[in-house]
Amino acid sequence: MSTVENELHKLGLALPAAPGPVGSYVTAVRTGNLVVTSGQLPWQGDKLAFTGKLGSSLTVEQGYEAARLSALNGVAQLKAIVGDLDRVRRIVRLEGYVHCGRDFRQHPQVLNGASDLLNAIFGERGKHTRTAVGIHEMPLDAPVQLVLWAEVE
Amino acid sequence: MSTVENELHKLGLALPAAPGPVGSYVTAVRTGNLVVTSGQLPWQGDKLAFTGKLGSSLTVEQGYEAARLSALNGVAQLKAIVGDLDRVRRIVRLEGYVHCGRDFRQHPQVLNGASDLLNAIFGERGKHTRTAVGIHEMPLDAPVQLVLWAEVE
Amino acid sequence: MSTVENELHKLGLALPAAPGPVGSYVTAVRTGNLVVTSGQLPWQGDKLAFTGKLGSSLTVEQGYEAARLSALNGVAQLKAIVGDLDRVRRIVRLEGYVHCGRDFRQHPQVLNGASDLLNAIFGERGKHTRTAVGIHEMPLDAPVQLVLWAEVE
Repeated sequence: MSTVENELHKLGLALPAAPGPVGSYVTAVRTGNLVVTSGQLPWQGDKLAFTGKLGSSLTVEQGYEAARLSALNGVAQLKAIVGDLDRVRRIVRLEGYVHCGRDFRQHPQVLNGASDLLNAIFGERGKHTRTAVGIHEMPLDAPVQLVLWAEVE
Repeated sequence: MSTVENELHKLGLALPAAPGPVGSYVTAVRTGNLVVTSGQLPWQGDKLAFTGKLGSSLTVEQGYEAARLSALNGVAQLKAIVGDLDRVRRIVRLEGYVHCGRDFRQHPQVLNGASDLLNAIFGERGKHTRTAVGIHEMPLDAPVQLVLWAEVE
Repeated sequence: MSTVENELHKLGLALPAAPGPVGSYVTAVRTGNLVVTSGQLPWQGDKLAFTGKLGSSLTVEQGYEAARLSALNGVAQLKAIVGDLDRVRRIVRLEGYVHCGRDFRQHPQVLNGASDLLNAIFGERGKHTRTAVGIHEMPLDAPVQLVLWAEVE
């Protein structure tokens, strides 16, 4: 088992199957030493674990969990591309789109659900850049959408 | 004529001139083997073929056409950079920003207008990752804004 | 002093210290010859120089200044990564997220505050691609959030 998956197991998490697309595209592409994923949602099997808007129908704690789960799906996409997560040299970038209601300001706390997971399982290699913007209407009513960019061997 | 442009012609489409910028920037840049475009709008000559919000003043079918046209403009940007579209090795990423009204959820169906075109003309090389987010207010009242990332020879 | 910082001085500007993150991430990462920053806000020391929404509580002129300041912070992030700004070969991309109220359409004029600065200090190397989208709710009530991508030696 890879070091990264071992860290996941310590957290009581198992890597899910990489979720498929919801349109005519693919879920991850490698170009040179870079891998980029499509937008990742909080899929749990074939349904979204959360739907709705932060600050309206969802709490920051639920948003944190949704971000964590979306990041876990993103890591599954990376594994599907590189085969072994120990071949990930660096998480380069996390794009964070947060579905939210009026006057919501806690995007960083929500996205920490993804960042904390990446930092925990990849260690130094998990230190990533981040964007955090609010989205007024999201596909499938998903509370977050994330994109991972990684440098791989 | 390149294979890609031949496929365009089969669809009854011709490559437009690459639209210019609407501010103090350029419309595409190459770095190493990657090309990234600026945000592409549904320009038809010097005017936008569609304006407005999906789910308010525009139908999903109109959005699909707007996305298709924006993607065509993006392909024109790629050609302006690489000269011959057969030198595009892979469409890496399509960023999809959809100008929409309240409770709109059909971003994927709109963006398929772009994805279907890329898949049709580039074939296997057209298989791309995608993001799909809703935007409440878009420059020029454009219904979609797209960015293409491509790996080139 | 680097050529780029000399150009900054001619404009009466000094490079600030690179602002830190507002969550569990880092502010810039290098992968190969590319550097990407996290979302940059109009920090002036430890406070935001502007807050609010364009077209509601802020004028386009204030937005232009906020974009210019955010870009200056982004340039500080590049320097923190590469050491000498003359090692920046090209500004590849500027992502522009504009916090705005209903019916706002002047995103390009706001983001020109960033683009004009990059063009002034980097010259030909500053010619970048750009995205410009409206955001309904931004972290920290910031009026703009920018990301810089640069190719470096």
